[in-house]
Amino acid sequence: MNPIMSKSDAAALVVAARIRRGVTWAEIAGEIGAPVVWTTAALLGQHPMTEEQARRVCEFLGLEEAVAESLRLQPARGADPALMSDPTIYRFAEALSVYGPALKELIHEEFGDGIMSAINFRVDVSRRPDPDGDRVVVTFDGKFLDYRW
Amino acid sequence: MNPIMSKSDAAALVVAARIRRGVTWAEIAGEIGAPVVWTTAALLGQHPMTEEQARRVCEFLGLEEAVAESLRLQPARGADPALMSDPTIYRFAEALSVYGPALKELIHEEFGDGIMSAINFRVDVSRRPDPDGDRVVVTFDGKFLDYRW
Amino acid sequence: MNPIMSKSDAAALVVAARIRRGVTWAEIAGEIGAPVVWTTAALLGQHPMTEEQARRVCEFLGLEEAVAESLRLQPARGADPALMSDPTIYRFAEALSVYGPALKELIHEEFGDGIMSAINFRVDVSRRPDPDGDRVVVTFDGKFLDYRW
Amino acid sequence: MNPIMSKSDAAALVVAARIRRGVTWAEIAGEIGAPVVWTTAALLGQHPMTEEQARRVCEFLGLEEAVAESLRLQPARGADPALMSDPTIYRFAEALSVYGPALKELIHEEFGDGIMSAINFRVDVSRRPDPDGDRVVVTFDGKFLDYRW
Amino acid sequence: MNPIMSKSDAAALVVAARIRRGVTWAEIAGEIGAPVVWTTAALLGQHPMTEEQARRVCEFLGLEEAVAESLRLQPARGADPALMSDPTIYRFAEALSVYGPALKELIHEEFGDGIMSAINFRVDVSRRPDPDGDRVVVTFDGKFLDYRW
Amino acid sequence: MNPIMSKSDAAALVVAARIRRGVTWAEIAGEIGAPVVWTTAALLGQHPMTEEQARRVCEFLGLEEAVAESLRLQPARGADPALMSDPTIYRFAEALSVYGPALKELIHEEFGDGIMSAINFRVDVSRRPDPDGDRVVVTFDGKFLDYRW
Amino acid sequence: MNPIMSKSDAAALVVAARIRRGVTWAEIAGEIGAPVVWTTAALLGQHPMTEEQARRVCEFLGLEEAVAESLRLQPARGADPALMSDPTIYRFAEALSVYGPALKELIHEEFGDGIMSAINFRVDVSRRPDPDGDRVVVTFDGKFLDYRW
Amino acid sequence: MNPIMSKSDAAALVVAARIRRGVTWAEIAGEIGAPVVWTTAALLGQHPMTEEQARRVCEFLGLEEAVAESLRLQPARGADPALMSDPTIYRFAEALSVYGPALKELIHEEFGDGIMSAINFRVDVSRRPDPDGDRVVVTFDGKFLDYRW
Amino acid sequence: MNPIMSKSDAAALVVAARIRRGVTWAEIAGEIGAPVVWTTAALLGQHPMTEEQARRVCEFLGLEEAVAESLRLQPARGADPALMSDPTIYRFAEALSVYGPALKELIHEEFGDGIMSAINFRVDVSRRPDPDGDRVVVTFDGKFLDYRW
Amino acid sequence: MNPIMSKSDAAALVVAARIRRGVTWAEIAGEIGAPVVWTTAALLGQHPMTEEQARRVCEFLGLEEAVAESLRLQPARGADPALMSDPTIYRFAEALSVYGPALKELIHEEFGDGIMSAINFRVDVSRRPDPDGDRVVVTFDGKFLDYRW
Repeated sequence: MNPIMSKSDAAALVVAARIRRGVTWAEIAGEIGAPVVWTTAALLGQHPMTEEQARRVCEFLGLEEAVAESLRLQPARGADPALMSDPTIYRFAEALSVYGPALKELIHEEFGDGIMSAINFRVDVSRRPDPDGDRVVVTFDGKFLDYRW
Repeated sequence: MNPIMSKSDAAALVVAARIRRGVTWAEIAGEIGAPVVWTTAALLGQHPMTEEQARRVCEFLGLEEAVAESLRLQPARGADPALMSDPTIYRFAEALSVYGPALKELIHEEFGDGIMSAINFRVDVSRRPDPDGDRVVVTFDGKFLDYRW
Repeated sequence: MNPIMSKSDAAALVVAARIRRGVTWAEIAGEIGAPVVWTTAALLGQHPMTEEQARRVCEFLGLEEAVAESLRLQPARGADPALMSDPTIYRFAEALSVYGPALKELIHEEFGDGIMSAINFRVDVSRRPDPDGDRVVVTFDGKFLDYRW
Repeated sequence: MNPIMSKSDAAALVVAARIRRGVTWAEIAGEIGAPVVWTTAALLGQHPMTEEQARRVCEFLGLEEAVAESLRLQPARGADPALMSDPTIYRFAEALSVYGPALKELIHEEFGDGIMSAINFRVDVSRRPDPDGDRVVVTFDGKFLDYRW
Repeated sequence: MNPIMSKSDAAALVVAARIRRGVTWAEIAGEIGAPVVWTTAALLGQHPMTEEQARRVCEFLGLEEAVAESLRLQPARGADPALMSDPTIYRFAEALSVYGPALKELIHEEFGDGIMSAINFRVDVSRRPDPDGDRVVVTFDGKFLDYRW
Repeated sequence: MNPIMSKSDAAALVVAARIRRGVTWAEIAGEIGAPVVWTTAALLGQHPMTEEQARRVCEFLGLEEAVAESLRLQPARGADPALMSDPTIYRFAEALSVYGPALKELIHEEFGDGIMSAINFRVDVSRRPDPDGDRVVVTFDGKFLDYRW
Repeated sequence: MNPIMSKSDAAALVVAARIRRGVTWAEIAGEIGAPVVWTTAALLGQHPMTEEQARRVCEFLGLEEAVAESLRLQPARGADPALMSDPTIYRFAEALSVYGPALKELIHEEFGDGIMSAINFRVDVSRRPDPDGDRVVVTFDGKFLDYRW
Repeated sequence: MNPIMSKSDAAALVVAARIRRGVTWAEIAGEIGAPVVWTTAALLGQHPMTEEQARRVCEFLGLEEAVAESLRLQPARGADPALMSDPTIYRFAEALSVYGPALKELIHEEFGDGIMSAINFRVDVSRRPDPDGDRVVVTFDGKFLDYRW
Repeated sequence: MNPIMSKSDAAALVVAARIRRGVTWAEIAGEIGAPVVWTTAALLGQHPMTEEQARRVCEFLGLEEAVAESLRLQPARGADPALMSDPTIYRFAEALSVYGPALKELIHEEFGDGIMSAINFRVDVSRRPDPDGDRVVVTFDGKFLDYRW
Repeated sequence: MNPIMSKSDAAALVVAARIRRGVTWAEIAGEIGAPVVWTTAALLGQHPMTEEQARRVCEFLGLEEAVAESLRLQPARGADPALMSDPTIYRFAEALSVYGPALKELIHEEFGDGIMSAINFRVDVSRRPDPDGDRVVVTFDGKFLDYRW
């Protein structure tokens, strides 16, 4: 009996196959008919895939069954803290440090006492052309949950 | 000579006046003709206001000149770390921990090696009606900056 | 214009009045017709009270209007980290450290991929008599939220 | 002479066998006649099993003797801190941060100066059907211990 | 209404009175008929005193009623972390770092799976004369609690 | 040339041999005629053994010469911080947090300005029968060292 | 006898006077004939000023003698850690995280084993016009010190 | 399928080849016609190389294709925190701690509210001869970015 | 009853008086006939003074009786961690990080298993003239204590 | 191509050879004609050795060429933080915490504003016989560097 391959080992193999075969995250997402941010996050180890999704990803990328088994596993979510200081990710954390308290004020003003769910939730990322330089547009879209006893 | 009132003391007075007068952040933003997230962040101490903006906010809220002087001051930006664990703010941090590495992959795939600027940047928050419960939609919109030597 | 009294200052005055008048948290909760854990948490600064609740608590305890104003304020939630090592609170953290991963496994087994909400949520504490020594029984009761894109 | 297999290695093998054989934690618990939360925690490395319990679990899951030897070992208890930020586990920590001080007040009011034992202690988790969405109900049940010199 | 004097402010006044009047901790303990370690810890803010104990200590030391009120308060226990690196206290922490795992092994060997209670517990400190230099002897004496579901 | 086996690897082999042969720490200590707490700490990597002690332990437990070589090595002392939150060890840390400042006061009152040595030092652990449940009694016994320039 | 005004209080008064009088850091530096980065750092509390420098700054800004006394004081150097996450300062820390190991390699290649002194050291900041947007140019210039026994 | 060699493993092989062949960082940079600080940082894992750059470096140093594949990979940027306390790197961090707040003041005075970009950015290091000992001169040169909504 | 003035407040007054009166630490030490490092450390709050020492220091510096009372108090030893990163102090910490493990090896080689006492201990600092620049010579001189059970 | 052996692996082999051959650090230092503290620190990974030094050490200890190659490598300096709490090393850190601020005062009084260099620096350790127990005498001797712009 061997332990199940860790999600980080599976992610490293997915990344290697993706680069060597020259396919994009969007193409992988298309292959399984799922949103691209969700698919990327799942393959990096943040969501469990269904048996069908895991099988099709592994066929598409030429990966062995052990990877598919790992991709189906329920994850322990959260990124490596060291990665949070990578500049591309850090800018989001900095924006949250600057605008987080303002977002809190405005959510309470509009919705009352509660939160934006991070579970009933989706994220999208897109490019918006702009003559001064194209822009990265990231949308966080979560159900409002009010504090309810 | 007295030191300039701290930005956190000024913010506490703005919040007190806003609540006691029963005005919304949107009404204050309207008063100075600025976006509401920017205005809220500025009044909480994250952006300097122009002399005109600071004067009009203080007149609108009945606050003294010392508050206006503080609002014009260049800030040292960033939130109190204790505030980052407030549930309404924490959900954003959690989403970043779950989806940050995926966003990094997709930004690099679409734009190449670089970042979303957190300086040439805007944030918007809105309510999207939904039969299963209305949703909080927050948009991060920053210029792409490529690593360029 | 004065800033609004901080929630921690208001809580200190509520605690002083409660002790000097010899009333219990349950009696205060009864006065406003709210659950006792919710009421205690709210008075310690973790939930906003309605105008009516705040007014009645302050009348009951002989506290000034400035306390009521503070009790109505939207809180920034979360306990002082130093308090988390108090033995009475620490035992809960220790239990979570020992049983948290098992609870995660069992929630996923029973409900699928998701969480127990800490927002649509209630806590109760009660005494269960036992010949070997009475027991503290604390119930966490939160709506299951499944990860849903 | 080899060292005894670590509890985390043994847990990884138990998890792999459980998933590959398609059995539930409850079925394993039934096999050894022990409560399901206790059994899950023990198999994840938080409690020592008796020789009989360890033997029966390994037979049921088809695991080698080295796993059984590890399961009998006295553990050093406590979860990996990284795991505490997994959303499913974090919600308990957040609830404790919001309600911990209130629980402390109410335990002292009802029982006097002391704590809920985390040693003479049990945890149960169950599903409570609810028309607004089923609920996760977790009960912490520990003997009250008064400070006694 | 004033808040109740903090336990640390009360402790500072007890220490000042003790030194200015030239009395020992043992004399204060004798005055209330309680063990000296318990009494010292209580006056430093770690245990609540009864109304009678608090009254007699304040009379003995010439302290005002507000101190007595504070001494009766239920404490949030635990020392300032900065104090733990004072050399006189640090040596105990160092000894625990060196001998803690051995104590754990020997407690389990002698008693089985469980802990020494820190609640049903007492500490004593004494001087043991020794020709090579007198010795500090500190005894931790706590009830064994076995893990019991 | 191979590096010397690490003290933690040696300790893991000692523990495995001890359990598989069914001998107690006290029996090992008896074998080398040394105190049991000292012996246990030494075998867990906190004290160097003499050549004779190391040889006899390895013969008694059937361990290879490489273990004996490691046991003779001068250690870098101190426990893994993760281990300090194991409940059996944590209770000592908690007691130190509650009673440490009182011990400091009483040591200074009795001995003057100085410390209990953690080097010229011994620890003993014993069981004290008690009708309300047997007790763990741990004695820290260190030479008093006065601050002396 | 009053304690000497703290360097941070003195800096707050210097900043207030500078803003209210509408003078630049460069003008203050010119007044005392010192480099502008040095002068700014000194007035923010990082270098002691001579009696003459401190007197002239206070006359120029209309500040009282107590400020001058503080400016002469030997500082304990280093910034408030919270300030290091301000975006304008953080970019330097990020650049150091990305390029620090490369700088170390190149310093050793060019100079051998040693360091750039941060004591025999100067910093300059200037604007370099650029058609794609002006640039901030910061020069660190320190004496090479070789490891020398 | 193997995972792609990690950037730190690739860097270790580059360093080994560089030393064993006796070539300088400048010579490697010359080989690919890129600036020396950029090249060194890229080879240490902080920038992705083009296919052509990676190929030429590996040919020049006699390294296998797997290294080249790793060098082309998009990095997660940032140094190992342990490395930041190496004295040669630490002096930069110390200088930033002493002069960072002054740099912030002067950037705002000269450019207004904004930052020096760490993305549109270059670093140079050079030796400046000096009769009192040669000097290390490091220039940070980044585009000014103003806060722009 | 007032609390005793804190050691840090007393130190701030000693420093202010020393500077305003233009006396050196050595002159103060001479006044009480004690070593200068000991005296400086004591006045900064790290050692208790005798009644006679405290009285003479306060007379010499023109300080009030409340300072003398504080100087006699038993301290909680240890510096503010923020101060440890001041460059003048940090260099000692850096040297310890570089040479600490070597000192440990050499102490064990010369003396056996044990430590240099930090209690039966003295420190001296002196200037040693050197044609290449005078040198700071700091001597740590502590009694060897062997691990002795 | 293999990476160069890490400095910590090389140090482990040096330590093993030193113990197995029964030679002292002083004998190794004598073999290469270098000071003993410098030699020990270099062999533990804190200084690069010359080709000649590395070759002679490896011949003397019977170590392979790969160790010599590692010993010549430029180090990243600094000790493992876990090692700093070993009692033999910690006493130096404690002394620095108690006497560091006094050393800073006295260095400034004697030399002016500056530091003791930790680069142009040497450390010596010796035994000083004393009837009350021999003493460990450690001398830190560094060039004074004044803050010079």
